[in-house]
Amino acid sequence: MKAAIIGATGYGGAELVRILHQHDYIKQYSVYTSSQVGMKFSESYPQFNQITNEQLKEIDIDKISEEVDVVFMATPSGISNELTPKIFERGLTVIDLSGDLRFKDQDVYETWYKKKASPKDVLQKAVYGLTEINREIVKDAKLIANPGCYPTATILGLYPLLKNVKVDLDSIIIDAKSGVSGAGRKASLATSYCEVNENFRIYKVNEHQHIPEIEQALKTVNPELGPIKFNTHLVPMTRGIMATIYCKPLNKMTEKSLRDLYQDFYQNDTFVRVREEGNYPSTKEVYGSNYCDIGITYDERTGWVTIVSVIDNLMKGAAGQAVQNLNVMLGIDEGTGLYGPPLFP
Amino acid sequence: MKAAIIGATGYGGAELVRILHQHDYIKQYSVYTSSQVGMKFSESYPQFNQITNEQLKEIDIDKISEEVDVVFMATPSGISNELTPKIFERGLTVIDLSGDLRFKDQDVYETWYKKKASPKDVLQKAVYGLTEINREIVKDAKLIANPGCYPTATILGLYPLLKNVKVDLDSIIIDAKSGVSGAGRKASLATSYCEVNENFRIYKVNEHQHIPEIEQALKTVNPELGPIKFNTHLVPMTRGIMATIYCKPLNKMTEKSLRDLYQDFYQNDTFVRVREEGNYPSTKEVYGSNYCDIGITYDERTGWVTIVSVIDNLMKGAAGQAVQNLNVMLGIDEGTGLYGPPLFP
Amino acid sequence: MKAAIIGATGYGGAELVRILHQHDYIKQYSVYTSSQVGMKFSESYPQFNQITNEQLKEIDIDKISEEVDVVFMATPSGISNELTPKIFERGLTVIDLSGDLRFKDQDVYETWYKKKASPKDVLQKAVYGLTEINREIVKDAKLIANPGCYPTATILGLYPLLKNVKVDLDSIIIDAKSGVSGAGRKASLATSYCEVNENFRIYKVNEHQHIPEIEQALKTVNPELGPIKFNTHLVPMTRGIMATIYCKPLNKMTEKSLRDLYQDFYQNDTFVRVREEGNYPSTKEVYGSNYCDIGITYDERTGWVTIVSVIDNLMKGAAGQAVQNLNVMLGIDEGTGLYGPPLFP
Amino acid sequence: MKAAIIGATGYGGAELVRILHQHDYIKQYSVYTSSQVGMKFSESYPQFNQITNEQLKEIDIDKISEEVDVVFMATPSGISNELTPKIFERGLTVIDLSGDLRFKDQDVYETWYKKKASPKDVLQKAVYGLTEINREIVKDAKLIANPGCYPTATILGLYPLLKNVKVDLDSIIIDAKSGVSGAGRKASLATSYCEVNENFRIYKVNEHQHIPEIEQALKTVNPELGPIKFNTHLVPMTRGIMATIYCKPLNKMTEKSLRDLYQDFYQNDTFVRVREEGNYPSTKEVYGSNYCDIGITYDERTGWVTIVSVIDNLMKGAAGQAVQNLNVMLGIDEGTGLYGPPLFP
Repeated sequence: MKAAIIGATGYGGAELVRILHQHDYIKQYSVYTSSQVGMKFSESYPQFNQITNEQLKEIDIDKISEEVDVVFMATPSGISNELTPKIFERGLTVIDLSGDLRFKDQDVYETWYKKKASPKDVLQKAVYGLTEINREIVKDAKLIANPGCYPTATILGLYPLLKNVKVDLDSIIIDAKSGVSGAGRKASLATSYCEVNENFRIYKVNEHQHIPEIEQALKTVNPELGPIKFNTHLVPMTRGIMATIYCKPLNKMTEKSLRDLYQDFYQNDTFVRVREEGNYPSTKEVYGSNYCDIGITYDERTGWVTIVSVIDNLMKGAAGQAVQNLNVMLGIDEGTGLYGPPLFP
Repeated sequence: MKAAIIGATGYGGAELVRILHQHDYIKQYSVYTSSQVGMKFSESYPQFNQITNEQLKEIDIDKISEEVDVVFMATPSGISNELTPKIFERGLTVIDLSGDLRFKDQDVYETWYKKKASPKDVLQKAVYGLTEINREIVKDAKLIANPGCYPTATILGLYPLLKNVKVDLDSIIIDAKSGVSGAGRKASLATSYCEVNENFRIYKVNEHQHIPEIEQALKTVNPELGPIKFNTHLVPMTRGIMATIYCKPLNKMTEKSLRDLYQDFYQNDTFVRVREEGNYPSTKEVYGSNYCDIGITYDERTGWVTIVSVIDNLMKGAAGQAVQNLNVMLGIDEGTGLYGPPLFP
Repeated sequence: MKAAIIGATGYGGAELVRILHQHDYIKQYSVYTSSQVGMKFSESYPQFNQITNEQLKEIDIDKISEEVDVVFMATPSGISNELTPKIFERGLTVIDLSGDLRFKDQDVYETWYKKKASPKDVLQKAVYGLTEINREIVKDAKLIANPGCYPTATILGLYPLLKNVKVDLDSIIIDAKSGVSGAGRKASLATSYCEVNENFRIYKVNEHQHIPEIEQALKTVNPELGPIKFNTHLVPMTRGIMATIYCKPLNKMTEKSLRDLYQDFYQNDTFVRVREEGNYPSTKEVYGSNYCDIGITYDERTGWVTIVSVIDNLMKGAAGQAVQNLNVMLGIDEGTGLYGPPLFP
Repeated sequence: MKAAIIGATGYGGAELVRILHQHDYIKQYSVYTSSQVGMKFSESYPQFNQITNEQLKEIDIDKISEEVDVVFMATPSGISNELTPKIFERGLTVIDLSGDLRFKDQDVYETWYKKKASPKDVLQKAVYGLTEINREIVKDAKLIANPGCYPTATILGLYPLLKNVKVDLDSIIIDAKSGVSGAGRKASLATSYCEVNENFRIYKVNEHQHIPEIEQALKTVNPELGPIKFNTHLVPMTRGIMATIYCKPLNKMTEKSLRDLYQDFYQNDTFVRVREEGNYPSTKEVYGSNYCDIGITYDERTGWVTIVSVIDNLMKGAAGQAVQNLNVMLGIDEGTGLYGPPLFP
């Protein structure tokens, strides 16, 4: 089986190459770009020197359709809108890592992304690939809208609670933090070393485009959910996301009931690890891996719940989950190519 | 005028030396320690090589009382409890940077700090030195309980709102982040480079000892305030604190009314800078300085307020504010020795 | 086949667990420690939560001898001196990652390490496991002295030149730089975050214990080599070593002849990658991998050669090379368990 | 007295504003740029919010000439070539922080900078402002070529030795390391956070444009000096340069004779601090200050000298030394505005 990675020169694309290189089913992959055609992939990413000899090729959909079985779209938002329908209608499986196919409502996409939405019929066919939640429908999908990094950490953190416990819906606060690689590989003053290092910054205050994605997913659990409070901060580190989530259950809970609920919910999910009491994950503890680690606690003093959810934004938050979805679609072991333990320190 | 710095080998102590070295009124200072007596201060901190020749001296209260006018206690919690009463009764002015004198209620201190509280009469005389809020009583104080780093950022961020607007008191969430220097200068695995770098960690979940300090201060504004939700995270950087604060006003607001309120409140305070609309501070923008920068916004979509407050934890969060308080007590320009602009990049 | 890791709570030990966990031949491993007996390994390293359930066991040589086939000594220097002879005489294969078995001359060890050397007969049996150089004798070894991190980068960088070109032996300068993980996992002020971050430090000037190790290895190429100039710097990063090497060939060279020489020398070595002209490796390009990347150039203007050699100190500089040696001893594919591409960014 | 800063939006320009803001003689300064005319300076650098209200103005030489007394050129190389002659001929004092005026030989500049050199007569009038070495001619200068960052650290490190001791001129190796701020404030993939963080890189191997600047300066001590070996590395930190220098004296030395030589040479220089035996500076120990700290040792084992010289590249390596030169020209205390101790941690 052969895969194409479109947008391979971005960090998400390079991470796909790293994973696929160690994948038992898909060892053949080709790489496509709009910017550095003809260059060897390892010139753009010297860590792959002598590991892969692939050259960056032009994005020619007819050719790609003849040569590969599955296409990963690792492009910035706004590109998959145009390309994916064409690839999909040629019968290929597509996994789109951008935000373009995540919204059922075109207006929501256009409001938050300020771009023209994908055609309605394509959006209807796209399955939101948050694997642990939607595994059953991913199995039969041919078109995956791979979730955003923040939504992955946030929804996996909140889902078991909202599913099982009545909470004050207006109380939910998501204070999220991310490393810099989420911004992609590009020259930009805002993500230049001297502006980021020894600095902690809040950005897109109340305006992040992942807000409606989280809302859409959580409304499937409770349609009464209103607008959420969600903010994002830039941490002087390369990889990793933490979502610190606060909310108030309407009834008293115990530490144990809360933990049981999460451990039951994720008991069959290899890649979600619920921590023991008093134990909270840090981002480095999932570095370079596909895990989402979750710590939870109920504060007797205040009656609020705190949820701490961490992922590697390039893995479970992008390329890792994309391959996890592919594995589910292929009917093979969900963790194929993804079992590498986190790299620490 | 001459000052003593007790606990000078910690980061807060070293920062006091840096400030006092450039202070027009107090250029003479001596340094005391319990651990490295006899060593030159600049051996412990080579950046002061050829700048100061002070030697670290034993903490002998009688001698100190004869030689100096004001004492800065830059010691860990639990030490000032014993020393400060003795120094204070000898007639010296004391500014305590530890948590020991901050609580009027001994039980609160003993519950959160797990240490024996200071004598009641000493606690009664101690003035909580959040300069912008308590300037008038600082003027006449002889004993200052210098605020904690997190409380400084948090209280300055929340105070104008709580003072002027009815808010849902149970809605207040403070999600705080700090650089590593807040943990002090000591050998510790938890703050070793490899454990912190490229890592983002939550710690002391719902248990930080600054919680009761914030509650005590905010209850002076509104006695009905209940237990607050406050969490702390360790950022892979050396200096800087950001408190991201969420709360829900009971009545609709406008972006402008919110901003006016803050700008009015702090109009005469050199060291609090309220940002313009759409503009939020990052920690590096106050690096090495005594400023507290505040960004605020009202989210029409959710009806919640977001407040972003940043300080340098060693300056406005410790040594800087201590000197600011001293200046107020001396009746001199409040910013003496503190006007250095932030260091960026 | 089953392996024991003694000293598993150090960073080198944890890296061995990470590699062996993905190793096709040795999937069973047990972990030993002198400090945290009884604790789950994943409590010490939460990244292994739900990946391994191994408990840290006491170092009982009789038990270990009964249960395992190969022992990795991932202990600080001074411990293998005592333990390895006992393990070795029980017939187990031992790979020692410390400096204890690297020197044929006991005096050299005792002079530089200030500790009592291992018995002579044990030292004689130990093979210096710089795989690319000593592969043939590693094949038949039962006892491996795994090279130090700096020596690995340095010797791989210099060996082809010294072997093939006459150089002014007194001209050789090795200016080496390392991330902090080389100092091990321990509480220490010198490696605490605030002392290391935003700081670049030189240490052990002309005194590093890896100096005699490099000299011993290079003297096997040219016995006339005198004392080398070698200095080490601490870089504010976790992983990675770069050795920048300068030396003067006695005859004029060309850029091409120099490169040919290196590419020929390493043509069959998967884990040494020689860069093309004008291309030099950075440490991140081998991050988390077993590669040693080498850049070389001849400066027409000065007549000197510059060699740039980088490794991940915990992988090719420690655990990776240890497993590479094991693979060679087992007669299996040398890269088993080590083919993971570097993690970037 | 009033100063103009041309190129104020760069990091060097912002550092000039920080210094001049605290300068007793020059408190008035205006800021000029070619890119963000009309914007408030504090919009570009929010740390100056409410500290300065200066607006960025167009570079109009006639206007500038009428309004100010001294001009700092903090522009990239290639701009001062054109502007400085025009400003200088209007009678203003000019201190140029770029490389444009540093070379007496136009060919050397044009070879290494690939740009057209400044007019010969202007170059002749420019004084190379390495204050400690050229103080006497700086006093009478009207036009200063402010030294580069690497040359400042290197020349201050080597000068006393070359001046007083016979060394093997071909043995001199300078292995230099710099933080990222030396690359200036601009969007660039090579200096973006994810490419630099947790990475150590060598760059411009044998090709750095500071090579001829160092050679020109050192040839004034010994005209027989040939081409030097000089390489530069990028350290994942913002500020700081270390030059590690190796060379071989032709006669045996003692540790004491070497130290005496340096301490004598710099005994009247406030901003050069020679370390005691066994003590070497790290870059953080001069952070944010104008100091150059030097550690030196003679290695009995090898007969070579090691010199370690550190500066803050934006201060002693740029803006700090520029103001130091101005102070000398004005005949005021050389350290005016520059006495702030280093910021640590």
